[in-house]
Amino acid sequence: MKSRSVASFLKDPEIRRLLDNTGVLADSRRSYKPALCPVLEEMVVVAEPLKGAVMQVHREAAKQLPMISRNPLVGVRKAGADDEISGRYGKERRIGVVFSGGPAPGGHNVIAGLYEGAQKANPKSEIIGFLVGPAGVMKGTYINITGDLVARYRNAGGFAMIKTGRDKIDTPEKMEQCRKTCRDLRLDALVIVGGDDSNTNAAFVAEATQDIGVQVIGVPKTIDGDLQVPEYCQISFGFHSAARAYANTIGSLCVDSSSDVKYWHFVKIMGRSASHLAMEAAFLSHPNVVLIGAEVADKEMNIHDIVKHICDAIVKRSELGRNYGVVVMPEGLLECIDDINVIILKLNKIIADYNRNSAGEGRDFHRDLTSMSDKMRYVNTHPIWKDYDSRVLIDLPQELQDGLFKPRDAHGNFQFSQVPIDEIVLDMVRTYLIRLKNEGKFKGQFKAQSIFAGYFGRGTLPTKFDCDYAYNLGQTAFALIANGLTGYMAAIKDLYLPVSGWNPVGVPIASLLHLEERKGRLQLVIQKSLVDLEGGAFKAFSRERVKWVIEDNYRTPGPIQFYGSNVESRPIIVQLNEFGKDLD
Amino acid sequence: MKSRSVASFLKDPEIRRLLDNTGVLADSRRSYKPALCPVLEEMVVVAEPLKGAVMQVHREAAKQLPMISRNPLVGVRKAGADDEISGRYGKERRIGVVFSGGPAPGGHNVIAGLYEGAQKANPKSEIIGFLVGPAGVMKGTYINITGDLVARYRNAGGFAMIKTGRDKIDTPEKMEQCRKTCRDLRLDALVIVGGDDSNTNAAFVAEATQDIGVQVIGVPKTIDGDLQVPEYCQISFGFHSAARAYANTIGSLCVDSSSDVKYWHFVKIMGRSASHLAMEAAFLSHPNVVLIGAEVADKEMNIHDIVKHICDAIVKRSELGRNYGVVVMPEGLLECIDDINVIILKLNKIIADYNRNSAGEGRDFHRDLTSMSDKMRYVNTHPIWKDYDSRVLIDLPQELQDGLFKPRDAHGNFQFSQVPIDEIVLDMVRTYLIRLKNEGKFKGQFKAQSIFAGYFGRGTLPTKFDCDYAYNLGQTAFALIANGLTGYMAAIKDLYLPVSGWNPVGVPIASLLHLEERKGRLQLVIQKSLVDLEGGAFKAFSRERVKWVIEDNYRTPGPIQFYGSNVESRPIIVQLNEFGKDLD
Repeated sequence: MKSRSVASFLKDPEIRRLLDNTGVLADSRRSYKPALCPVLEEMVVVAEPLKGAVMQVHREAAKQLPMISRNPLVGVRKAGADDEISGRYGKERRIGVVFSGGPAPGGHNVIAGLYEGAQKANPKSEIIGFLVGPAGVMKGTYINITGDLVARYRNAGGFAMIKTGRDKIDTPEKMEQCRKTCRDLRLDALVIVGGDDSNTNAAFVAEATQDIGVQVIGVPKTIDGDLQVPEYCQISFGFHSAARAYANTIGSLCVDSSSDVKYWHFVKIMGRSASHLAMEAAFLSHPNVVLIGAEVADKEMNIHDIVKHICDAIVKRSELGRNYGVVVMPEGLLECIDDINVIILKLNKIIADYNRNSAGEGRDFHRDLTSMSDKMRYVNTHPIWKDYDSRVLIDLPQELQDGLFKPRDAHGNFQFSQVPIDEIVLDMVRTYLIRLKNEGKFKGQFKAQSIFAGYFGRGTLPTKFDCDYAYNLGQTAFALIANGLTGYMAAIKDLYLPVSGWNPVGVPIASLLHLEERKGRLQLVIQKSLVDLEGGAFKAFSRERVKWVIEDNYRTPGPIQFYGSNVESRPIIVQLNEFGKDLD
Repeated sequence: MKSRSVASFLKDPEIRRLLDNTGVLADSRRSYKPALCPVLEEMVVVAEPLKGAVMQVHREAAKQLPMISRNPLVGVRKAGADDEISGRYGKERRIGVVFSGGPAPGGHNVIAGLYEGAQKANPKSEIIGFLVGPAGVMKGTYINITGDLVARYRNAGGFAMIKTGRDKIDTPEKMEQCRKTCRDLRLDALVIVGGDDSNTNAAFVAEATQDIGVQVIGVPKTIDGDLQVPEYCQISFGFHSAARAYANTIGSLCVDSSSDVKYWHFVKIMGRSASHLAMEAAFLSHPNVVLIGAEVADKEMNIHDIVKHICDAIVKRSELGRNYGVVVMPEGLLECIDDINVIILKLNKIIADYNRNSAGEGRDFHRDLTSMSDKMRYVNTHPIWKDYDSRVLIDLPQELQDGLFKPRDAHGNFQFSQVPIDEIVLDMVRTYLIRLKNEGKFKGQFKAQSIFAGYFGRGTLPTKFDCDYAYNLGQTAFALIANGLTGYMAAIKDLYLPVSGWNPVGVPIASLLHLEERKGRLQLVIQKSLVDLEGGAFKAFSRERVKWVIEDNYRTPGPIQFYGSNVESRPIIVQLNEFGKDLD
């Protein structure tokens, strides 16, 4: 055989096709055209108050946001001959858009919807994409969104087109920087794509830029699914894709578990304490044990109750010869456990008091008191620390004790993410099983593996649902802007139906705000939606899961599909909550 | 709205459809009919020596396996009118099948192929599935494989139908139990589906059961891809599916990384030291840094070289404002680092000597010498321990030092899986970056997350390639049995081509065996195939990866698809090795 050089091999078109992956799915996804709901197919739409919709505004929100707090909830309908909006609707506009917070599948389609909505109304309109989150707005760093760019990122996952960041426009100086950018770039509007805090921020920016004629619209993004408005915004975009990605992983672990019959897989799942992702993924895969944050809090379970709950399933399955299974827990589990929360709050105060009492002498709790015994000696002198707290603390495993004492963030807050709750629970389970074994109550084997179903869910390709949903949100954001509105969050009503049944609405953000302690002071924020224990989804879940514990009732949802009959799906929890509204 | 009970809600057919997930992908996958290569579509096939194929047999293999070591490599062709095989081919048979070792996607299709091949030849033939691995063969626990069972598990992932286990039939007593089961069940043949060690075992079982008329055929299974026979078995089944599952995860992390622009994701990937999975997944997703075990060994990189190699990429990207990226490393990295391997081997011997010298007094290295300084004091007294070893050891981070001293397994072997190599490398990277920062050579930020791309890849739904491949392997196993052969591994030649170009072969297992030290003594085993640094795949990889380090050259392979144009794909490394056979 004649030999040839590597260089010529690498130039061979067939080899390049392999190496450049031109056949990969992401490329073919670009050609998918997201479906629009009927009203958004119209050339001109009118946004007007929705009949029967009553949104209360908190007194503090009315005070701090005097202008936008008067916004009513609006629906969108086709413009008729009598509507006066047409002229304004098609005017030439310059609209900024920015991502805020962690990535969520579908983000690029919000930009695509916004761009194409604006272009349809007036091809001269321009979309400006601010780079690396709200910092880009304040610094005035941006790119012009072109049709080519939209085409390149259509239906792609992540936020790579303009990146994202976590800055907030939350001081008078930052607000002024933002106003300056809006004036310099002659912006008519700004669309902020983000979660609860980012939409809160959008409300304040809306209020502060109304005098310079800039409209601000928020778009509900978060894989966690904890930004919900009953009836009007049943879930944020990104949730469905992440849940499907996690369900695929959990389903695969269920298969592995019941094939190799020797491992328990412990899955920590993203979504903080909210547990919407845990519940949706569980409905799709039927793991043996699923912990739901809101239920743990409601039942006042402590960490030992949780460990016993898990061990109970392990022992029962073991008695049937099944020394394997799958446990799913939310990453924010620790926040839901009351007695640990109390200790965290007390330690927050004690540490802050120690550091504050230094009166400029630079005392530092963590630097000055290095050993645990030194720390405990001081803690015991503080009046809010009770003997009961010491007893709770001493009952916890060493790693968790250490975790609770970890340095606080710049605002004195405990950093939940620094404590590997899955590893800690797993260690406690191991310890408790040894005790049960010694007592003769557990005769099986226990081997476990743990995994974090986390970041990869934020970067997955969006499902058809999220492709369509995010695209409709982008178009809705434009429709609200074209109707002259500001201080709204774009939303789609009736997501439990196919796209043909969807209805765009504008939710006045001010009506979503309530007072909550953040960074040590009361602030207006959007309340995070936890799992509703009275909702249809949880009621169905709490009955169905009984079958999942002992039997291998596993389901394999499989990887997200983009072709064939499995493409069409919608979040199960959204459907169950809607259909189960009337349950006892 | 009238309220109704949860019980009636849960009985509603629409709600049940949601809860039972009857629409899930796994169900629709059952209807996919795997493609057969042309020759296996024939009613009767003849297995005969393949012209020009020369397989050497090790002298020791010829000695220990006198009968099956005379087997020639065979190919399969359509039977002609002159062939005398027809009568024997269609006789009624009872064939056992068993899974051995970790699950791999496609396993159920081996059973489907075997069952349907046997049924086609004689509908009265029966397939018996032994439960929970080779232990099922020894204990005689089994189920009868029916058409319904085959239909239920067709194209499903994992080995849940009959489970798997890790026992070996490797003592005279166990071999006798196996012979007894074969006689009791009147078996004509036994098919062992497993990796390198399981196929080795199959050869010995074949030799030992020839006198009772039982034929034994192995089937090459392992997601690791390290069971390869040049030209005749380019990859095992399961590899492609796991690689695609991991590539999807890595691709999603690349997207997350370049969207949120603040994390380095460190991915530890399954496949032991072999790194085939790491390379295949890397070709599909283009992460910034990929470590290949064979290259680390070949370049004699030590752990500090590896850390510097990673930090070099981090610093370079940081200089371009990119404080993010993705690093992929094989789980078996530690085995490829020579100076650590030397320390492990010396400690193995020192610990064994200590425990052995007890002369029945029950001395135990780990129980007697609790502190590291006690351990080191003893180690330093041993003649094989040199000052140089101490210097290497002391240079390692504490966690790795502790890891190297961990208790050995029952055979005195070091347990690589007990050392979290990804966490250790990540810690060392952090430490080294601080040094670079102090020296003014690194001005960026470094935040990292680590994940193990592991067990979920074993449980994923098989790709079309693996569905077809495993089905053809099952049919080939039957064809070899029907031709009266034993001591063979079923294989498919020319996997780089579409199914229409595949050719079934029988590889004589004895020819794959060589001597290797296992559990302290020389044994006949199949050598694991590591990445061939002279192969087309690695040569292409080593050129292409240069582009991946600095630029965001990421690719999104996306989740495995079962419909549409992305269904048809084959392992990239197999194609590159085939097409690049003639490279300088």
